[in-house]
Amino acid sequence: MIHNPVIDTMMAHRSVRKFTLQKLDDETLETIVLAGQQAPFAGQLCSLIYTRRSRLPFHGAVMFTICVDLHRMEVIMARRGWKTVSNNLSLLVFGIQDASLVAENMIVAGESLGLGSCLLGNTPYEAPKLRKFYKLPSRVFPLVQLVMGYPDEEYPPRPRYPLEFNLFEEEYPQFTDEMITTAMKGMDDGYLAQDYYKKQKAMIPLEKGRKETFTYADYSWTEHISRKWGQWMEDPEDILGPLRACGFPVQTEKED
Amino acid sequence: MIHNPVIDTMMAHRSVRKFTLQKLDDETLETIVLAGQQAPFAGQLCSLIYTRRSRLPFHGAVMFTICVDLHRMEVIMARRGWKTVSNNLSLLVFGIQDASLVAENMIVAGESLGLGSCLLGNTPYEAPKLRKFYKLPSRVFPLVQLVMGYPDEEYPPRPRYPLEFNLFEEEYPQFTDEMITTAMKGMDDGYLAQDYYKKQKAMIPLEKGRKETFTYADYSWTEHISRKWGQWMEDPEDILGPLRACGFPVQTEKED
Repeated sequence: MIHNPVIDTMMAHRSVRKFTLQKLDDETLETIVLAGQQAPFAGQLCSLIYTRRSRLPFHGAVMFTICVDLHRMEVIMARRGWKTVSNNLSLLVFGIQDASLVAENMIVAGESLGLGSCLLGNTPYEAPKLRKFYKLPSRVFPLVQLVMGYPDEEYPPRPRYPLEFNLFEEEYPQFTDEMITTAMKGMDDGYLAQDYYKKQKAMIPLEKGRKETFTYADYSWTEHISRKWGQWMEDPEDILGPLRACGFPVQTEKED
Repeated sequence: MIHNPVIDTMMAHRSVRKFTLQKLDDETLETIVLAGQQAPFAGQLCSLIYTRRSRLPFHGAVMFTICVDLHRMEVIMARRGWKTVSNNLSLLVFGIQDASLVAENMIVAGESLGLGSCLLGNTPYEAPKLRKFYKLPSRVFPLVQLVMGYPDEEYPPRPRYPLEFNLFEEEYPQFTDEMITTAMKGMDDGYLAQDYYKKQKAMIPLEKGRKETFTYADYSWTEHISRKWGQWMEDPEDILGPLRACGFPVQTEKED
């Protein structure tokens, strides 16, 4: 593996959920966002609301609400005499990419400046509340929130799948039993070694009368993630509702 | 603005569409992907197919097909006795984020190693073809392709919106005429100064009998992007079809 300051910063990445009381100054804030917005884009479909008020999650110094923003785009299009005809789902696929590319630059730029961060995955499901709170106009969808601050905890990066389970040459492989076992073991042993879920008391409860057989001694990533996708967000309305509330109704047929 | 090697690498980003014949060695390839997969994730829902065969777009040295991969996740879940219940749209919102976070790390890591790159936005629309070509199993969606190589052209980064049009404190603002005019002028003058569309012969034709009034002397970003969202991808089926073909039917109601 090749090393340089960019690669090493990325390789040291871990989410941080405990921050010191140190504030974030304007220059640092602006540097992070300027680096963020230099990411490639389909249409600059990302905008950011930030707050440095106290009482942020994990006592962060700043929280960014990272939005897919078609409102701003359409203001510009109107000036040019154009109206959007593209369907909302296509726009969202581009917009989520634009927003995530910006987010990742911000995360890595922040880490290069000594900051840590944590993405809040629940943001879309709080969109109806967030749009009122931040006065988001229609056609702005809060995709994910990014909390940043100076880390008040130190631990190593979490494990990832082995490279062979992630990068495939020329075609998608048939997974062997060994590939699957190795990948699962690597993830689970890695999280257990850090007492990751135990420290956060983050075991996901079993629903529908399923009987718990795990303790924090063996509850790890593959079980945790299985419980998420195996129990949560069953109803499409869970995401369609927030999207609709933000002015992105997802149609399955062409409108007249 | 603060400078360091990470920030400076990001600030120098520009897409590259012309590459030298220099090949990409294994160590560089692996370094880029290892840096990529160290990005934060909701569920490691991204996997990558790569090819270094000749005749890649722009004569790139490598092309990555960056996928939203639920197949691999579900292989693991099955080992744990779980089946996915989460609706496909929610999974896609997480998966597109996971994939894009990885992509951005790869882009910046590549640039830190002297490589340039270009994202191909048309990938989802070619999904039905790509899934056959790369033997993607159901539940793997090719989101975006990333072509990389050693740059054979040099030009400055493309412009971005002004910071004030992108970063909002505490709440989303009412845009003033001046904010909009300044943002549009900055984008359009910046692209025109580089002869960006002229060099690529990339003017988007007007449809539905609209009469052309632009030449490459005044055709720039705000007109270009307006023509995309104002003319293309009108039918939701344009994206629903590829998603369905890849095993991600988007439902608007809960299935029994």
